[in-house]
Amino acid sequence: MTAEVQATIARWREEEAAVRSRLKPSGVTTLDDVRQYTGLDFLKALLDGALPAPLMGETLDFVPIHAEPGRAVLQCTPSTRHYNPFGSVHGGLAATMLDTALAWAVHSMLPQGRGSTTLELKVNYLRALTSDTGPVRVEANVVNVGRQVGVAEGRVVDAAGKIYAYGSTTCLVYALT
Amino acid sequence: MTAEVQATIARWREEEAAVRSRLKPSGVTTLDDVRQYTGLDFLKALLDGALPAPLMGETLDFVPIHAEPGRAVLQCTPSTRHYNPFGSVHGGLAATMLDTALAWAVHSMLPQGRGSTTLELKVNYLRALTSDTGPVRVEANVVNVGRQVGVAEGRVVDAAGKIYAYGSTTCLVYALT
Amino acid sequence: MTAEVQATIARWREEEAAVRSRLKPSGVTTLDDVRQYTGLDFLKALLDGALPAPLMGETLDFVPIHAEPGRAVLQCTPSTRHYNPFGSVHGGLAATMLDTALAWAVHSMLPQGRGSTTLELKVNYLRALTSDTGPVRVEANVVNVGRQVGVAEGRVVDAAGKIYAYGSTTCLVYALT
Amino acid sequence: MTAEVQATIARWREEEAAVRSRLKPSGVTTLDDVRQYTGLDFLKALLDGALPAPLMGETLDFVPIHAEPGRAVLQCTPSTRHYNPFGSVHGGLAATMLDTALAWAVHSMLPQGRGSTTLELKVNYLRALTSDTGPVRVEANVVNVGRQVGVAEGRVVDAAGKIYAYGSTTCLVYALT
Repeated sequence: MTAEVQATIARWREEEAAVRSRLKPSGVTTLDDVRQYTGLDFLKALLDGALPAPLMGETLDFVPIHAEPGRAVLQCTPSTRHYNPFGSVHGGLAATMLDTALAWAVHSMLPQGRGSTTLELKVNYLRALTSDTGPVRVEANVVNVGRQVGVAEGRVVDAAGKIYAYGSTTCLVYALT
Repeated sequence: MTAEVQATIARWREEEAAVRSRLKPSGVTTLDDVRQYTGLDFLKALLDGALPAPLMGETLDFVPIHAEPGRAVLQCTPSTRHYNPFGSVHGGLAATMLDTALAWAVHSMLPQGRGSTTLELKVNYLRALTSDTGPVRVEANVVNVGRQVGVAEGRVVDAAGKIYAYGSTTCLVYALT
Repeated sequence: MTAEVQATIARWREEEAAVRSRLKPSGVTTLDDVRQYTGLDFLKALLDGALPAPLMGETLDFVPIHAEPGRAVLQCTPSTRHYNPFGSVHGGLAATMLDTALAWAVHSMLPQGRGSTTLELKVNYLRALTSDTGPVRVEANVVNVGRQVGVAEGRVVDAAGKIYAYGSTTCLVYALT
Repeated sequence: MTAEVQATIARWREEEAAVRSRLKPSGVTTLDDVRQYTGLDFLKALLDGALPAPLMGETLDFVPIHAEPGRAVLQCTPSTRHYNPFGSVHGGLAATMLDTALAWAVHSMLPQGRGSTTLELKVNYLRALTSDTGPVRVEANVVNVGRQVGVAEGRVVDAAGKIYAYGSTTCLVYALT
């Protein structure tokens, strides 16, 4: 492992620790919570601990790291708790992280009063994750967000930039009522 | 809820309890374990507790129920541990269960000496799962398994037959070495 | 080729000839045309020659055969005009036929005043089509049609029942204005 | 339309004319043709008219424009011949062009003696193409090409950079025999 990769891993772990120190205990938000924010501000409220952290993130041990307009980043360090019977990480981990990050990327583009829900998710598996892989990130970017539909794509990469999975999503965008 | 649906739920819970009573503690198998079985017999060895249960199934609390040639069934009762921030079940649960069941359906068709790995998974989300949904099953069926590639499709349904998610997968089939 | 397959091919060719004798020259419909029919009656009007046949069907030489609630069937006899550089049929033919049949299956479920548009299409290629394959059909079935979203799946099969491609689609359902 | 967009359209039309002047009449290649080239050189031989142009490209009136390692570009000017019954371009055009460009992007990475075949294609439709859209390009880029599997993603865009469709593919890579 090069010094550069080691430095990236160290930075990633620091950023994760910083987010974890701010996250509220996991729970659910109310429709009133969602209504009072733009999409991006809602995500920042999760990141800053103003709203509860996602329960599924706690169950699978991944955390959101960053959100900006059209882009979101999550992080996870795969472990044996994520394993399939064959001694590598179950595809469900990358699918769940991609589902989250892609939905965040779409959500980050929504004005106040709009919500989104995932209609469809596709994931390509490119390499096996194992408990030796170290921390990985899902980096998701919007392809297009229109009045009714949002599409985003994302990648699971390690600190050396190696890609493990690739995915895209179709979200329905609607008026919060 | 009709009496028929209640009876189905009761039967599903009994079948789950029967499988859980046989499952070995979760862990991983070795390549030697995989090599000594046909695809179907390997899955039956997991179901019968001759091989360790999948770790990811324990983490997300779902269990395999049944495997036959070209078909596999898993079961889960969604709970708040699977929730997204919006008060319903994260799409990652259906994705993970579909990934598993679809891979099992393909695997059930393999002769001894062949393995498979998931190249790609697509999931359509049709209805939200909640902690009130009760037990759901993923029922996966093979579309085609050739010498190098297997394709399967599956559905997440509740005891009343209502469909919550739909998915398909592409698996690479290869010689175990 | 068995006598049974030959009989199926003969029947398919007759059904195609019968549809072709009724089809109007290809063209486009107006929003007023669409508005006056339920989804199923609109498709039947195309099949019966009350509305113009699809232009893309003429370009790629495929025809609609049948529509019923939740189900649609198209037919095509692949030829060298559909070839890729490698001496078999380009994947675009199955993709285009699946796109059409899947959209028809969703459309067949819509009440008057509702329209649908394809958000997403996925196709699995299972076997190569060639100019020796003979007639093939796309048979599409609805998975679920809700108030805003419809999902359908379909298969490309030959007269012997051999499967060549498999696909699914996500459609947005909306009010015609 | 801005002067910049007009200039891009003019340049795109010139590049198309230049390619068309070099293309050989459409036809199929032999396995011997494929065997004697690296993946990239095979594509360049198509572009330079050393090998016959694709038949499906002639049928649907699109042309390859460019190939480099990991990237391919195709062009088409949508017309009424591509129309669905609703007065806009059938989704099959974008699907067929994406299928081609994505396969080219993967193929461009193959050493001599390796071939690839498309296992799966997914397309998102973002905006309707019409006969007023003018020329559009599919720009495809490799996500990852390994020993057995290649994945690529691509976009259909107009001269102003507006995106109409987005897609990804999974290809099987194998030894030519």
